[in-house]
Amino acid sequence: MNPMPPNNVSSDVRMKGFASRKTVEEAIEWIDSQLPNFSNLPSEEVSLLESCGRILAADVVSSVNVPGFNRSMMDGFALRATETHGATPYNPLPFKISGGSFPGSPFSGTVFPGQAVCIMTGAPMPDGANAVLPVENTERQGDSLLAMGEVSAGKHVGSVGEDVQSGSTLLSARRTLRPQDIGVLSSIGCSQALVIRRPRVGILITGNELLPCGTAPRDYQITDANGPMLHSLVKRDGGQPVMPGLVPDDRESLLASMAAMSESADILLVSGGSSVGQDDHAPQLVATHGMLAIHGIAMRPSSPAGMGLFNNRLVFLLPGNPVSCLCAYDFFAGRAIRAFSGRNTEWPYRRVQAKLTRKLVSTVGRVDYARVKLIGNNAEPISISGASILTSTTSADGFVIIPSNSEGYAAETIIEVFLY
Amino acid sequence: MNPMPPNNVSSDVRMKGFASRKTVEEAIEWIDSQLPNFSNLPSEEVSLLESCGRILAADVVSSVNVPGFNRSMMDGFALRATETHGATPYNPLPFKISGGSFPGSPFSGTVFPGQAVCIMTGAPMPDGANAVLPVENTERQGDSLLAMGEVSAGKHVGSVGEDVQSGSTLLSARRTLRPQDIGVLSSIGCSQALVIRRPRVGILITGNELLPCGTAPRDYQITDANGPMLHSLVKRDGGQPVMPGLVPDDRESLLASMAAMSESADILLVSGGSSVGQDDHAPQLVATHGMLAIHGIAMRPSSPAGMGLFNNRLVFLLPGNPVSCLCAYDFFAGRAIRAFSGRNTEWPYRRVQAKLTRKLVSTVGRVDYARVKLIGNNAEPISISGASILTSTTSADGFVIIPSNSEGYAAETIIEVFLY
Repeated sequence: MNPMPPNNVSSDVRMKGFASRKTVEEAIEWIDSQLPNFSNLPSEEVSLLESCGRILAADVVSSVNVPGFNRSMMDGFALRATETHGATPYNPLPFKISGGSFPGSPFSGTVFPGQAVCIMTGAPMPDGANAVLPVENTERQGDSLLAMGEVSAGKHVGSVGEDVQSGSTLLSARRTLRPQDIGVLSSIGCSQALVIRRPRVGILITGNELLPCGTAPRDYQITDANGPMLHSLVKRDGGQPVMPGLVPDDRESLLASMAAMSESADILLVSGGSSVGQDDHAPQLVATHGMLAIHGIAMRPSSPAGMGLFNNRLVFLLPGNPVSCLCAYDFFAGRAIRAFSGRNTEWPYRRVQAKLTRKLVSTVGRVDYARVKLIGNNAEPISISGASILTSTTSADGFVIIPSNSEGYAAETIIEVFLY
Repeated sequence: MNPMPPNNVSSDVRMKGFASRKTVEEAIEWIDSQLPNFSNLPSEEVSLLESCGRILAADVVSSVNVPGFNRSMMDGFALRATETHGATPYNPLPFKISGGSFPGSPFSGTVFPGQAVCIMTGAPMPDGANAVLPVENTERQGDSLLAMGEVSAGKHVGSVGEDVQSGSTLLSARRTLRPQDIGVLSSIGCSQALVIRRPRVGILITGNELLPCGTAPRDYQITDANGPMLHSLVKRDGGQPVMPGLVPDDRESLLASMAAMSESADILLVSGGSSVGQDDHAPQLVATHGMLAIHGIAMRPSSPAGMGLFNNRLVFLLPGNPVSCLCAYDFFAGRAIRAFSGRNTEWPYRRVQAKLTRKLVSTVGRVDYARVKLIGNNAEPISISGASILTSTTSADGFVIIPSNSEGYAAETIIEVFLY
């Protein structure tokens, strides 16, 4: 931890920079080309009460009818429809009330000619009856009923399976479960749902200047922001973060951590040391022990990002600067995690149109990620552009992407803002 | 559970119907009028890693600067700016490299006149130096450096507190925590966040026809859909569901359950028995032991919904029919739960414009909640309108609200769809 002698400074190598950078599109294409290799997403059973928002792993076919019996759709009287023919308020027809049918408590007998059974909405239809005469078309005295209207056969009767038919596909694989889906699943007797397992995402944070979350920054050290941020991003995207402590910033420790993590995790994220210096171990380790597919991307921030394969896992190399880390996560790692979790790969950010209050300058050949504040329908660029200033993303309401074929946007341009 | 004798059928009372119904607007006004009485939302400390998406209970003021030291913004050489004056590629000026400063590992000496310290991005600025000359403006041989460009004082130096200033308000109360907020909170040393406690929402499910979740429906019984659905809705809206088993559908059991639940829960939901029959215990209990503010609402479905106060808790009476239950939850209970959890009270549904494929008929004086399927930009009304058919809400993509002053919409009308 002491200053190194000048002849040994690692900057000599790092300072060479990237020989060439890939475009953002090439990086995304590479990710998408890898996804089919990981498309057999594992599934798991989870309690129905914990399954809302999860992604169904398989079609759900009901093995029961809901309801399992014919039921009344009205409060009224179950009877034989033909016996009401001709009934009007001026020609009331008499019935004898022979009992009642209530939800969960059916009438156990049969409705014979001339009889009616008082019935509640949702209650089972008694044998013999084939229609329900609504209460407002009746008059009652004790067990005598006067029908003052007609009903046709089947009227006001909900039939077996009217909600769910046995054998029908109720919900399809890849559906995101909604509250009402949970209700329907419960109604057919499920207590569990088979959902896509959340991909386990190993988060390895390196950097000799870092103190672990929960420690106040002191002296010349800063407290890790990337670990907790990535943890939250992974959860947002449907992943299961696995985050051991900070990884010492040397080749052997990082290799050991990557190897151990790749045994249990589906995807690896390495934050810090992602550039081209000799202290930037992660790209070298991926290149040596796996496959470094992309390293150096024509974007700002996040240019020193990379990705590849390590022990047959997708690995994303994220810059240590927190804004770069967030941006590289959102462009690349998040896409893969959403795919692994069965979600739409697109950004989970809502988009709004807004008018730029002042120009946003970029450079052709590079994608820019510019934070903006929304004031009504105006987007005010955040003047601090440093990739180390994470508060530029907390004071911002969202960000604007300037594509690589653009030199930026003039003031007053209507642009699309992705809302954080 | 046997059919009751005809002289004792509960339908006699129920069938009277509501004497008068309140409007949806009146019900919402009543909820909003109650919210100020519950505005002191309790807070709790949660682990930072569990706090994303939660609502901050208080402003966060930093007690530290981030970074706590001046740092380099470039890879290059820390030196005294005035000593570079006049340096160009044609007039290189010599410096002696006296050491290196690396992230977390500062140069411990002082940069004296004629000296430079090799420095990496993010590394602490050494004493004596006040600027960083980028590496691309230098040439180096061993410990000899040639400066081939000028820098002014402060150039490429990030100063103490440039990300976070000690004493500044970093995040404001009522903010929904984002991943980058979690990063910033970690960077100032937090391991916990003070967030609004999730309101505890007691869910009481009644209905003699019901079997508990996890049981296959059989005979004349159906399996509870409302409990698991409400559980999911409450979680979606930031509440903490508390759901004991099914409550027996008698006055004493329900009163005892409501009383017990109201000791620990912030809000009560009672599903089933919400209408005006003598077996509809919930409204009677609220009227007798608390205050029944609203009972019967001019809407379809959900007309037999109610709300009031019980043991100083807000209580919502939700119809047992599952579509009515969902709709009444969304119109009324969800609004209160979102308010209690510190969220926006509006519906969490995304809205889109769509063209009706056929007319939607309603009645003036009543709000209608109509499920629709989206096919491209067209909204196809779901033909099944029964409040008992929960699958009408799972086959639908969203719903349309027909306000009480409308008789409905003609085919081809552009309407607003709330997406489930």
